[in-house]
Amino acid sequence: MSKKNQNQFVSEIADINTDFPRWYTDVVIKTELVDYGPVKGTMVIRPYGYAIWENIQSEMDKRIKKTGHQNAYFPMLIPYSFLTREKEHVEGFAPEVALITHFGDEELAEKLVVRPTSETIICEMYSKWVKSYRDLPLKINQWANVMRCEKTTRPFLRTSEFLWQEGHTLHTTAEEAEGETLLMLSVYEEFMKNVLAIPVLTGKKSEKEKFAGAVATYSMEAMMLDGKSLQAGTSHYLGQNFAEAFNIKYLDKDEKHKFPYQTSWGVTTRLIGALIMVHGDQRGLVLPPRVAPIQTIIIPVAMHKDGVLDKAKELENRLVEAGIRTKTDTTDNSTGWKFNEWEMKGVPVRLEVGPRDIENNQVVLCRRDTNEKITVSMDNLEGEIQKLLDEIHEAMYQKAKDYLYSNIVPVNSIEELKEAVDNGKFAKMMWCEDRACEDKIKELTGATSRVMPFDSEPFGDVCPICGKKATKVMIFAKAY
Amino acid sequence: MSKKNQNQFVSEIADINTDFPRWYTDVVIKTELVDYGPVKGTMVIRPYGYAIWENIQSEMDKRIKKTGHQNAYFPMLIPYSFLTREKEHVEGFAPEVALITHFGDEELAEKLVVRPTSETIICEMYSKWVKSYRDLPLKINQWANVMRCEKTTRPFLRTSEFLWQEGHTLHTTAEEAEGETLLMLSVYEEFMKNVLAIPVLTGKKSEKEKFAGAVATYSMEAMMLDGKSLQAGTSHYLGQNFAEAFNIKYLDKDEKHKFPYQTSWGVTTRLIGALIMVHGDQRGLVLPPRVAPIQTIIIPVAMHKDGVLDKAKELENRLVEAGIRTKTDTTDNSTGWKFNEWEMKGVPVRLEVGPRDIENNQVVLCRRDTNEKITVSMDNLEGEIQKLLDEIHEAMYQKAKDYLYSNIVPVNSIEELKEAVDNGKFAKMMWCEDRACEDKIKELTGATSRVMPFDSEPFGDVCPICGKKATKVMIFAKAY
Repeated sequence: MSKKNQNQFVSEIADINTDFPRWYTDVVIKTELVDYGPVKGTMVIRPYGYAIWENIQSEMDKRIKKTGHQNAYFPMLIPYSFLTREKEHVEGFAPEVALITHFGDEELAEKLVVRPTSETIICEMYSKWVKSYRDLPLKINQWANVMRCEKTTRPFLRTSEFLWQEGHTLHTTAEEAEGETLLMLSVYEEFMKNVLAIPVLTGKKSEKEKFAGAVATYSMEAMMLDGKSLQAGTSHYLGQNFAEAFNIKYLDKDEKHKFPYQTSWGVTTRLIGALIMVHGDQRGLVLPPRVAPIQTIIIPVAMHKDGVLDKAKELENRLVEAGIRTKTDTTDNSTGWKFNEWEMKGVPVRLEVGPRDIENNQVVLCRRDTNEKITVSMDNLEGEIQKLLDEIHEAMYQKAKDYLYSNIVPVNSIEELKEAVDNGKFAKMMWCEDRACEDKIKELTGATSRVMPFDSEPFGDVCPICGKKATKVMIFAKAY
Repeated sequence: MSKKNQNQFVSEIADINTDFPRWYTDVVIKTELVDYGPVKGTMVIRPYGYAIWENIQSEMDKRIKKTGHQNAYFPMLIPYSFLTREKEHVEGFAPEVALITHFGDEELAEKLVVRPTSETIICEMYSKWVKSYRDLPLKINQWANVMRCEKTTRPFLRTSEFLWQEGHTLHTTAEEAEGETLLMLSVYEEFMKNVLAIPVLTGKKSEKEKFAGAVATYSMEAMMLDGKSLQAGTSHYLGQNFAEAFNIKYLDKDEKHKFPYQTSWGVTTRLIGALIMVHGDQRGLVLPPRVAPIQTIIIPVAMHKDGVLDKAKELENRLVEAGIRTKTDTTDNSTGWKFNEWEMKGVPVRLEVGPRDIENNQVVLCRRDTNEKITVSMDNLEGEIQKLLDEIHEAMYQKAKDYLYSNIVPVNSIEELKEAVDNGKFAKMMWCEDRACEDKIKELTGATSRVMPFDSEPFGDVCPICGKKATKVMIFAKAY
């Protein structure tokens, strides 16, 4: 492929600096992660995208089970009346539920909704299952599809139907339930760091931004390359709100009937959007090695020369055997075309092997994240690549972390806040916790309150919006 | 627990010989595999049941990937008009689809259906993706929930919503597509044998019983303990029916535009029903070891004696380390109660360890399938249990196979057929392939045509129903 063609190829993707939204859409469509479904707001997750989700699931599921949760599956159809039992819950979800009125020709006596989340139906079942303190804690997780009819949608980030896991637990004490809420948030944070190479800010949401029906919502927020915030996962402390609404009662040791304390927490296919917008570059995807469907792409150079293809296949088999997800590109495309293609698709390591390499018992490895090339012996190839994948992971995490922390700025006025968020930064502000100030900021700058980070040091005691006493450090940002 | 109490415990399950349907319901509910959902016909798959499904998924997914398929995810919502494009398809599914008319308060311009199966939406996407012969074969699988509103439902066997995998492939030639159809049927058959320990009859369905929109449907049929047949999985050759309806066209090497040939195939959560009704007994579940959520249950005998619990935990850790799914029952229930409980729950191996066993460096292993007890040394416990699990698997398969083949009887008249199916047998009949005879048999005996087994030898040439020439061996049976 000529230089000119290579440029053409890259130029198919919109400029990441001047048109980030189109860059994102170009990348997800051209790399065949996703396609638009026929019904507005729905997406088809194509094999390359779904393989990322399978890797996310597998890593997350391990962690969910290790912390003592069991998976189960609850029905997708919920009687409409269930939604209405928790007042805030129905206000939050009623406008965006998909309503089922008929089975075939038969009209239903009661309308059903496709689950927008499963608190209500799970509480209904828990009210049957939980009798005694011996049944607690009850710690169940579900992997499922959910449906929220959204007006403005974007593949992975906001779609009417999406895939997720939702954990739902019951506990005898508020302390234990709060502990669970924070434990799962920390599991998410660790997952983001060690699997997706994404640093997050964790902490509490404002009253305005909390989950419909929760006492408190904790969230992790990640910074995208355009400086916007993405809520990457949430963990809710529900108190006894749903337990009371669904009459979940257990007989305690003291022979009294009590309502248990509840949590719920989830992450979604949105995480795929997050990793694209945190790590990507002008050439396309840069996939974190631990979820990349292909970790090493082997490009046989001078493929039709004697022995090259055999050697490539031999190396592929060795790497697959060692648990490294590996593929060999044996198509008739030019080497240049292949380089571009797999760079766009974000494969962490490219392995080049040609006649001269074979003679010298070596291969060339090229990192997607830095473009660096190294030549290594074939002898301990498995070990070399595993080490390189770990190095790439660490480098990607460090880069994203530097980016995040160098783009958080303290602000002391609405003007400073506006300037910060307009320039792709997170604004850190001392806040009075009053919703009026939050609303005013939204109105004047387009930024919303994101999270009150656990690890933040107060740097003043006056809310610059209203002049009253500030009690919390709040991150304001534009958000997805 | 006294003898009396033990009997009471067992007597909670209806008699398997006199009331098989209630036995089934008692077993699935009492062992907490499943519960009824609030919407009629839906089920909640509880953790113990879902863990079986996860093991089925993991084993089946390996096989699907090994045969060159990739997973993807297509939207659950399908425009109603898609259904109508393939005439037989809409006739088959329209009466049982769940219809969505509103998103929140907003009425939709076009009604949507929750997928009863995904041929239509997948074909719509394939028509966008497939351009050239280079794009073929296209081999995609999906794990998903589907919805078919059924009048008469039973947990796992027939529910309005169920979980499944559905494979959808496109090929350039009819031969290749037919080969794929049969390949996946053979993958299913191997899975049934080697994972669920269930023998099946495989072959073609009648025209009447085939999938709505298929050219030919192949099926595997398993015999339940009451002699009824359960269709355990199907593989469809769709020819060009859907490709034409959805205008999927590719440019072939000869520069001509052509319709590809298609297949689809699936198995569902119904498999859980199958393994219960093939292997169960009066005491409850008998789970095939390779999908049992717990393969070995450790019962510490004289649990509160010094060292017993420690030793039990040590053995548990060793077995878990060796990849054997193991749990120790440390509850305060009596040993007798524990024995009954875990027998009912079908755990393949019970391990008893008490003070005297510890002294002698041995444990007692008891098989769920035969009740046999053996005493083995603790030294190579991992190896002993793995060997025992394999033996149990083989024995369960052999027993089910003997049962199946000793209950297939050749019949030469409608009276013989009726007698056979009324006595819990499969009737094997030479058949003219005429639908009128099939309908007559249904009307007079309640039996339906199940499958024309691949390996069946003709034993006559006259159809006993109409007296005309018989061309095929057909299995007739009552069915779930």
